[in-house]
Amino acid sequence: MRIVVLAGGVGGARFLSGVRAWASTHQAATQQAATQQAATQQAPTPRTVVTAIVNVGDNVTMHGLRICPDLDTVMYTLGGGNDRERGWGRAGESWVVKDELAAYGGTHSWFGLGDRDLATHLVRTRMLAEGRTLSEATAELCRRWRPGIEMLPASDDHFETHVVTPEGTMHFQEWWVRHRGVPEVVRFEFDGAATATAAPGVLAAIADADLVLVGPSNPVVSIGPILAVPGVRDAITKSPARVVGVSGIIGDAPVLGMADRCLRAVGVACSAAGVGGLYGARSSGGLLDGWLVDTVDAGTTVEGLPVRAMPLWMRDDEATAAMVAAAVELAAR
Amino acid sequence: MRIVVLAGGVGGARFLSGVRAWASTHQAATQQAATQQAATQQAPTPRTVVTAIVNVGDNVTMHGLRICPDLDTVMYTLGGGNDRERGWGRAGESWVVKDELAAYGGTHSWFGLGDRDLATHLVRTRMLAEGRTLSEATAELCRRWRPGIEMLPASDDHFETHVVTPEGTMHFQEWWVRHRGVPEVVRFEFDGAATATAAPGVLAAIADADLVLVGPSNPVVSIGPILAVPGVRDAITKSPARVVGVSGIIGDAPVLGMADRCLRAVGVACSAAGVGGLYGARSSGGLLDGWLVDTVDAGTTVEGLPVRAMPLWMRDDEATAAMVAAAVELAAR
Repeated sequence: MRIVVLAGGVGGARFLSGVRAWASTHQAATQQAATQQAATQQAPTPRTVVTAIVNVGDNVTMHGLRICPDLDTVMYTLGGGNDRERGWGRAGESWVVKDELAAYGGTHSWFGLGDRDLATHLVRTRMLAEGRTLSEATAELCRRWRPGIEMLPASDDHFETHVVTPEGTMHFQEWWVRHRGVPEVVRFEFDGAATATAAPGVLAAIADADLVLVGPSNPVVSIGPILAVPGVRDAITKSPARVVGVSGIIGDAPVLGMADRCLRAVGVACSAAGVGGLYGARSSGGLLDGWLVDTVDAGTTVEGLPVRAMPLWMRDDEATAAMVAAAVELAAR
Repeated sequence: MRIVVLAGGVGGARFLSGVRAWASTHQAATQQAATQQAATQQAPTPRTVVTAIVNVGDNVTMHGLRICPDLDTVMYTLGGGNDRERGWGRAGESWVVKDELAAYGGTHSWFGLGDRDLATHLVRTRMLAEGRTLSEATAELCRRWRPGIEMLPASDDHFETHVVTPEGTMHFQEWWVRHRGVPEVVRFEFDGAATATAAPGVLAAIADADLVLVGPSNPVVSIGPILAVPGVRDAITKSPARVVGVSGIIGDAPVLGMADRCLRAVGVACSAAGVGGLYGARSSGGLLDGWLVDTVDAGTTVEGLPVRAMPLWMRDDEATAAMVAAAVELAAR
């Protein structure tokens, strides 16, 4: 079974951890079934493969370092190196370099650049400077973290989410981290989207998938940028795979982050129904074949879309794997 | 009075600290004399200006960062941020990023890249990437450290000391730090020396100087590379300034570092006489008008060169300032 997951940062990383747990269980079950048949058949056991297509719109250059917050959050989380309480960055982090940069009068002291994290950016920046791609740098970093899934950046090209406010345009990180998402949003812009192409393997993974999961990440600034990479949305709508979305909104509030502010900016209600409608049913030109909402949102309807309600709090891998199992069931209908 | 000092790293930095102390005392004395004349004369008090021309041959790119060990050692030392026991790097240093880079399988884990120090390299590397010169980056970094003297890199151009060994050529840092100066030296090469030019202000400072001091730094790999920048040696030999050298060898051993290994490689005796002879008397095509040696080396003679013996251990600024005072006296003969 081949599963593709569209993922942003913290929520996407937790979801992927559950997908990996589900895939491991599924693989073991498949293996066992294959072993029982092995006496008579020699066919290889089909593998359960998970490919994450990760948002690159948050990527930013600071202090000359190329920083990819969502890729790193997914990598650290799946590699067991993330700070669980803070959600982002490395466990046991220190902030010596950040303080020193501030002492030099650095202009980005609002950005949480940890010492451990910084080594990741150094390795990546050096590789990019040497002419390697973001995909190659990501693969190199993953040699250490062994996330247990395939991690692909949505695009290797320049692609950044910018926020147009009444006072001017700023990088998404500046709006989100520096200004805490407070400045009014006129619109989000994906800088580079006109010319960017999907990273190697992205479109093929979608085309070959049995199931595409749209993770419970921010629909506007995490999933939105992935779908804005030319070819990605098209590949999903044309894929033979079933496409199931998981709501990141539970009872009118985002599980994590500031999806409410982002949804308001694009005129969409902050609810499971609102986001389900934003994605839309594939049968009527949208993205999804099924929509998972939390039990508190049971009764949610989205035109043309089967909706299933179940607990969507990703407390641990077990709870999240149950969400994935439900999505698989919904896809099989 | 205008003093130019040729300086390398740790020894050069300590010497400069003493030069600064001497200059401060000299400036105060000059000021007092001027004040006594002020009732009748309105001439401005002449300032005592110290310009350090710092070796760039140790500069190296690691992890994509441009690292300038001698410039930083001088800057940290004069700015009060250096580690006094270790000699190089920052006081209160930590090594988180270095350990993380090693965890990524980095190839330069032998290099002491501290977290605090790293911020300096980040600021410099970003500025260079933006098209600024090493001189401009140095001036920017000095806005924080306020070394109290003018610090000029010998050159803004590519210029690196390489070591040719029987097994191949390596960067000076690799020979010195990684291999502890053990590999046999066939010769030292100054990569880029053919096309490099002196950094802005270097030749003018020499031309305008009243006194040029050749610091007690390694004559082969600290002073040598400065003199190898096209135009520098010529500017010194043609300068109206007196040129006095200070021996970094006391009683057949270098005060700091591995000058003995370097001198052997160029066939020069590791002694005050040997190094004095290497620099040579300006009167016979060499560099110096005077040579300061330690009291244990009293009796040292160098053809054509006045030699003065005095204690050359730079225990503190007072001891070092006394060396400078002796050099000034020697220059005035």
